[in-house]
Amino acid sequence: MKITVQVLGLDIGGANIKAASSDGNSEQLPFAIWKSPEQLADRLRSLQLLSSLQPGLVALTMTAELADCFPTRAAGVRFIVQAVTSVFPQIPVRVWLTSGEFCTAEEAYDLTELAAAANWHALATWAGRAVPQGPALLIDVGSTTTDLIPLSDGTPLPTGLNDLQRLATGELLYSGVRRTPVCAIVRSLPLQLSEDAEPQLIPIAAEFFAATQDVHLLTGSLPEEPQCTDTADGRPATREAALNRLAHQLCCDATDIAPAQLTAAAEFVAEQQLQQLLAAIRRRLNELASQHPQQSHRIRVLLSGSGAWLAA
Amino acid sequence: MKITVQVLGLDIGGANIKAASSDGNSEQLPFAIWKSPEQLADRLRSLQLLSSLQPGLVALTMTAELADCFPTRAAGVRFIVQAVTSVFPQIPVRVWLTSGEFCTAEEAYDLTELAAAANWHALATWAGRAVPQGPALLIDVGSTTTDLIPLSDGTPLPTGLNDLQRLATGELLYSGVRRTPVCAIVRSLPLQLSEDAEPQLIPIAAEFFAATQDVHLLTGSLPEEPQCTDTADGRPATREAALNRLAHQLCCDATDIAPAQLTAAAEFVAEQQLQQLLAAIRRRLNELASQHPQQSHRIRVLLSGSGAWLAA
Repeated sequence: MKITVQVLGLDIGGANIKAASSDGNSEQLPFAIWKSPEQLADRLRSLQLLSSLQPGLVALTMTAELADCFPTRAAGVRFIVQAVTSVFPQIPVRVWLTSGEFCTAEEAYDLTELAAAANWHALATWAGRAVPQGPALLIDVGSTTTDLIPLSDGTPLPTGLNDLQRLATGELLYSGVRRTPVCAIVRSLPLQLSEDAEPQLIPIAAEFFAATQDVHLLTGSLPEEPQCTDTADGRPATREAALNRLAHQLCCDATDIAPAQLTAAAEFVAEQQLQQLLAAIRRRLNELASQHPQQSHRIRVLLSGSGAWLAA
Repeated sequence: MKITVQVLGLDIGGANIKAASSDGNSEQLPFAIWKSPEQLADRLRSLQLLSSLQPGLVALTMTAELADCFPTRAAGVRFIVQAVTSVFPQIPVRVWLTSGEFCTAEEAYDLTELAAAANWHALATWAGRAVPQGPALLIDVGSTTTDLIPLSDGTPLPTGLNDLQRLATGELLYSGVRRTPVCAIVRSLPLQLSEDAEPQLIPIAAEFFAATQDVHLLTGSLPEEPQCTDTADGRPATREAALNRLAHQLCCDATDIAPAQLTAAAEFVAEQQLQQLLAAIRRRLNELASQHPQQSHRIRVLLSGSGAWLAA
């Protein structure tokens, strides 16, 4: 007799909760955990998926433990595991570890260093099935960060395991298509100060006035989301509001600068972000090639994430 | 008969309200206007200065109109002028303009472009009394920004008048000693990944996890302020909490990195900020020298602001 257990997969990020079920459904809920961590359990209970799913097992990954509402990442891991088990008290909760295996919720309390920021590793382990032979690079472009994970014969072989090591090796790039502050990508924006002047680079305000979502709204790469107010100023994710947010980086309102100029400035930021991303990808590919000299021309590239289009 | 009128000077910034009275008192109130602009009038009423002062005139400057709670800077100017006049309904309110004169509150509604971000000009006009002859440079290092204002024979002679022009000319540097995000000053921090390794530059998280106040707390340039929680994570402005905030920029907790290493990283950021500031000052001094070839060796420098020590 074979008993099929429905599995609920949860990825608790700092800005979004992602859920997927073994019957093929998935769901994403915006949830800025640093603003109200105590609401995590209620937010999980509100998942639409749960109305038609009776999970027999919960598989958990996370990155939200880095949110600065938690005094330490270890405390964050424990808080998140505790919130999830409180929502599913009757069901086993299993937590993915960067050592490449699941542990129980109780074990995760002690293995916080392996449970922290392990979602990239879970993704890479799963994606490895698609490239069972030879070297490959998984490029996962998210809203906040980009993971560049080397694989060999279907197994993730990252040099770094925790986020610090991954930043150091360039396997974690803190750049994504929605949440990255413009002032963390560029120091200045091009602008014509008068109609007949050449565009000049103008240093921008060191404030979180605009993010990459605004940039990609203005270049047309991302669609408007009038209902979404998870933006720098809490106004909607529309092109009109994005124009004003980007103008603010120059201490101006959108009424002070022609829309075409602001769009050109957005294209400049998008190009800088892309070049930073491509440089990081090139370094990873070169390293993979040097590790696999016989197969250096057969490195496969896997693209995933909400910002996969950026690297495509 | 000479009637002496007590004057209340107000500078409404985005993060602080500054007040000074003509009887020689002054006061600074933290007030993050973007979080609750509707509380501005109440906050003004709470000024200690007012318990012993019956002002006959209010002199107003501002920079808070850029806060992203306001749809436009013009709307911000009007909101601020309206809040101030509502607190002092019986007293004339005069608003300083970058054209170098005061206007009435009513006039300010129409002259928003001149009233916006005029506090640097008011300071420079006043400071000009100290340097009545020859060229001078006023360096005002604040919590968020630094103003570099050329003076000639006691009169401010800036090339730019609004913030956009001042960013373009380098007369406004968006760098200060408390609020500037670390990720807007540096892209990476030096760290030894093991005890016998050389320090290597590690790309940091593009998040507002730590600010220059944390940096200068750790280098010892700023004192601890346990009561102050106007920090990136809302925890106190102490060295211990600052260690954790800076560690977060590397996706770590303070428990993961030795305090000496984090202090060295803070010194690196402080040095980068100082070099950026010095480069901007040098450009201003060279320009002043070329404009005053006869007096190029007699340029006087005036230092002011809560971060004057940084440039000293």
